Amino acid sequence: MTQEQDKEIKKIAVMEDIYRENDRLAAETRDGLDRRNIFTVNIMGAPGAGKTSVLRGIIASMSDTPVAVIEGDIESDIDTKVLRELGINAFQINTGGACHLDAPMIQTRLADVQLSDNSILFIENIGNLVCPAEFQIGEHIKLLIVDATDGSDKPYKYPLAFEKADGIVLNKCDLKPYVDFDSAFFYKGVQALNRKAPVFEVSGKTGEGFPAVVAWLKERRACHK
Amino acid sequence: MTQEQDKEIKKIAVMEDIYRENDRLAAETRDGLDRRNIFTVNIMGAPGAGKTSVLRGIIASMSDTPVAVIEGDIESDIDTKVLRELGINAFQINTGGACHLDAPMIQTRLADVQLSDNSILFIENIGNLVCPAEFQIGEHIKLLIVDATDGSDKPYKYPLAFEKADGIVLNKCDLKPYVDFDSAFFYKGVQALNRKAPVFEVSGKTGEGFPAVVAWLKERRACHK
Repeated sequence: MTQEQDKEIKKIAVMEDIYRENDRLAAETRDGLDRRNIFTVNIMGAPGAGKTSVLRGIIASMSDTPVAVIEGDIESDIDTKVLRELGINAFQINTGGACHLDAPMIQTRLADVQLSDNSILFIENIGNLVCPAEFQIGEHIKLLIVDATDGSDKPYKYPLAFEKADGIVLNKCDLKPYVDFDSAFFYKGVQALNRKAPVFEVSGKTGEGFPAVVAWLKERRACHK
Repeated sequence: MTQEQDKEIKKIAVMEDIYRENDRLAAETRDGLDRRNIFTVNIMGAPGAGKTSVLRGIIASMSDTPVAVIEGDIESDIDTKVLRELGINAFQINTGGACHLDAPMIQTRLADVQLSDNSILFIENIGNLVCPAEFQIGEHIKLLIVDATDGSDKPYKYPLAFEKADGIVLNKCDLKPYVDFDSAFFYKGVQALNRKAPVFEVSGKTGEGFPAVVAWLKERRACHK
């Protein structure tokens, strides 16, 4: 075996170990949340897709259910502050460089935040359309946020996030008249990867489209109980 | 030492090894490009920021210099086809899942593409505002593409990409009237991280703003010779 091959084998072993340990901790976290009937949603999406705006839209249409939010960011706490100003129970995780949240981070953070039983916990992942899709964090479902200004080719270029999503929100639909968004091409790409996840067209800015997202979330939560 | 600590040490050693080997190969690649006077630009940005549209705008304003493009995507070759239809010398790299380009990938690809001496090579990285900033690929400069619809808080949330950029292009400025882009907040964030990189406001859609980007690229290229 060459030195290079030896290095490659060590690298693969380390990565497998990381994924295995992550999945074990994610399952442990999910069990703990299940015991308290806290339905947990992993919010994924590219930088600037409007994950926090969509969360605001969802929460505004969900006044009958207690919610909490964990905001994942590499640095800063801009979105946590915005949510807190709106009276939402929000907590920050800063990864200090890491490109995704993982199960150990969530387990550690959950140990020191106050959550209500029978609530919904939204965890906003790092803005990244690639890496977060590879890591379970203890969630019950994954909600993917994409937006009309980012173009209709995203399913073709970033397939894993679309494959893994339980639901997809297409945000910034108010801007469709000003951009070249090819709806047929987008939906064809989504369908090729994922025939189960519904797609909801919304606008975080105008507030349109959120009741349908909320109805679906409640249904998923009810099915899970 | 616990088993956990042992694993952590092995993980750090593997990562250090990957970065070290990557930097060595990047330097080797850069030397090879220097010998042929091929000025190389690493194009970084989030999914949908308009990296390919900006490239088209730059190349359209640069008719006096031979150029080539290497397109990095996880899957698909949509942008390579678009560029080739415009008569641009474009080559595809598919990472098959990896969230960034690295020096080994570029070195391998460069071995079998035809480039002209005394040209400019643009390498469009994977759409990701986090990971590509951590890996040199043999480039002379890094050009970061961000866009007005993604919001003005990006420097605060994704600092490394802004810190490492030699130049920054703010794309989709034609959409500013329809979105809440806080220019003062954006520029304050950029300035706090990087006082050297110029920021160019452009629109890939209308074609505005590209002559200034091209003039700056030519200046950087001339300084490097």
